[in-house]
Amino acid sequence: MADVTPHAAAIAGTGASLPGEPIDNTALGEFLGVAPEWISRFVGTEQRHLAMDLKTGEVYRSLADMATDAALEALDTAETAPGALDFVVMGTATPDELMPATVNHVADRLGVEHIPTYQVQSGCAGAVQALSLAERLLTLPGHTTGLVIGGETCVKHCVTGRSPGEIGSSELVNYMLFGDGAGAAVLTGRPEPGDLRIRAILNQFTGAGKPAGQTVRWFGQADRDSGEPPFSEDYKAIEERVPEMAAEILWQLLETTGWRPEDVGHVLPPQLSGRMTPRITERLALPAAREVNCVHQTGNNANALPFLQLDRLMRKEDPESIGTVVGIAVESSKWLKAGFALERQE
Amino acid sequence: MADVTPHAAAIAGTGASLPGEPIDNTALGEFLGVAPEWISRFVGTEQRHLAMDLKTGEVYRSLADMATDAALEALDTAETAPGALDFVVMGTATPDELMPATVNHVADRLGVEHIPTYQVQSGCAGAVQALSLAERLLTLPGHTTGLVIGGETCVKHCVTGRSPGEIGSSELVNYMLFGDGAGAAVLTGRPEPGDLRIRAILNQFTGAGKPAGQTVRWFGQADRDSGEPPFSEDYKAIEERVPEMAAEILWQLLETTGWRPEDVGHVLPPQLSGRMTPRITERLALPAAREVNCVHQTGNNANALPFLQLDRLMRKEDPESIGTVVGIAVESSKWLKAGFALERQE
Repeated sequence: MADVTPHAAAIAGTGASLPGEPIDNTALGEFLGVAPEWISRFVGTEQRHLAMDLKTGEVYRSLADMATDAALEALDTAETAPGALDFVVMGTATPDELMPATVNHVADRLGVEHIPTYQVQSGCAGAVQALSLAERLLTLPGHTTGLVIGGETCVKHCVTGRSPGEIGSSELVNYMLFGDGAGAAVLTGRPEPGDLRIRAILNQFTGAGKPAGQTVRWFGQADRDSGEPPFSEDYKAIEERVPEMAAEILWQLLETTGWRPEDVGHVLPPQLSGRMTPRITERLALPAAREVNCVHQTGNNANALPFLQLDRLMRKEDPESIGTVVGIAVESSKWLKAGFALERQE
Repeated sequence: MADVTPHAAAIAGTGASLPGEPIDNTALGEFLGVAPEWISRFVGTEQRHLAMDLKTGEVYRSLADMATDAALEALDTAETAPGALDFVVMGTATPDELMPATVNHVADRLGVEHIPTYQVQSGCAGAVQALSLAERLLTLPGHTTGLVIGGETCVKHCVTGRSPGEIGSSELVNYMLFGDGAGAAVLTGRPEPGDLRIRAILNQFTGAGKPAGQTVRWFGQADRDSGEPPFSEDYKAIEERVPEMAAEILWQLLETTGWRPEDVGHVLPPQLSGRMTPRITERLALPAAREVNCVHQTGNNANALPFLQLDRLMRKEDPESIGTVVGIAVESSKWLKAGFALERQE
């Protein structure tokens, strides 16, 4: 069942931060020792941004850096001072450190104080989880404005200086898919006419009895040399299940909102890869919806994606044309369904 | 400002899980190459539980194992079937993996399905953060029952087989302080007379402009061999600030509830260490409050602690004697204040 939200929360502004210059398939292919055409064919993603130099291994952006920049842009767009925030919620699978949670370094840099900060540990469903929690926090007495952030950095797992033969196939797939970056949104609990209001949010664990589709590990001082791989995934299960789950999320959101498929004006589909996204969208079968995608340019940066799509929607589309929006995210780790429906406030 | 909660959420049951047999200061001193008396004098903690064998390095419990056991006990105590849960919120600084979030493995083992699962990345403030989010989720239409879990495992950072001289002083302090374990609580949105209702919850970031008091790192495939230490802390700043912050949290909760210091019947103080806790409690100056501590027996297992204290309160104290309860947690990472006030429902 989708979480219907009788209270009003709306998107007041969005922001995005992508590190450095885009890395195209020629540059990535050179690093991985594979043909650029093969990357295009296999994942369909044309470029991505990374917070490190693939040649030297120099890391020039942290997650806190990117999240702060995205947050500042969202605050600026929403014409909101950091001091007006009642809370910050951030989602990421790849925090800079285990403790402090990265959201606290972001709060420090924004100069906020005496408000709650939350960080959700999550993959592709994390942005929606963060939105969902923020929507609830706006129901607290006196809470009117919140900041929501999502971002990733894969630099800790990205080893440079290896010869192509040393890179295993699971790693290869992940390098081709992933990107770094952050996105953010300011939410207001006092929507004005014309604002994009949250009509429904869905978050559902559907992984009971199913093996994880994707695992990302971290290493400690004790298992540094264990030889365990950083990534494992069942790409076949992902390809099979994600389009089906995306369609189910859509139907659940339509049921909650009472919209028909032809009522959806814009759709923000899952951004697994440049190749998967069109397959998913086809399955959604929304006759009138304009698609908002970014994975071709950004790579899959998980928690950032829905915010990057929202940012693109609000900056690139004619505001008058935006009426009803459906966003869908699928986390294949333990098969999490996530989605939201937005509607222009009359 | 403390988050006053006009909606009703109450503790319906609690559970705890501590791995293996307690490890006393003699056994820990042998492992670390220090005198047991020195551990007692420096941190005051008498024993702790660890999810691994200090002699062989064998890890016999994961965070998912401990969290599942604590959750099952809480569900049992609350006479609640897992299928009745509307959501699960978990807090930890030490997830088993980055993805899937450990809470999803717990949900799988509990056999729940189609509900939201959230995992907060946090240190000592995490249990209160999780409680706070759960309280909000219970305000959603149709949501009546939630599960909240907190837990830690330090096994990934705990290296066995070293000679005592190889263990740096920062690591020594952490081994003496930390412990593994998990705690859980079932929350109900429909409190009955006699139930312990949440009156107020406080979560505040107060670290703007202050260096982190404590950092716990994770390593990836790329920085495995960086030689960076897993832990850093400013123990002097912690000793200085935490008692003051604990007192401030108390005052803020008293202001929100309207209670006087003499009205507080039970206090769950921060459980930094066996030595710090009495210093903090003295500073709180609550004339009528009975203390509920566990750090002497459990070590500092961060996200688990408030649940372990709640569990002890509800199992060891005469239910008739429990009227007003204040819980306080301080996270020295980036100086997070956290606390809650509970009151018996008339």
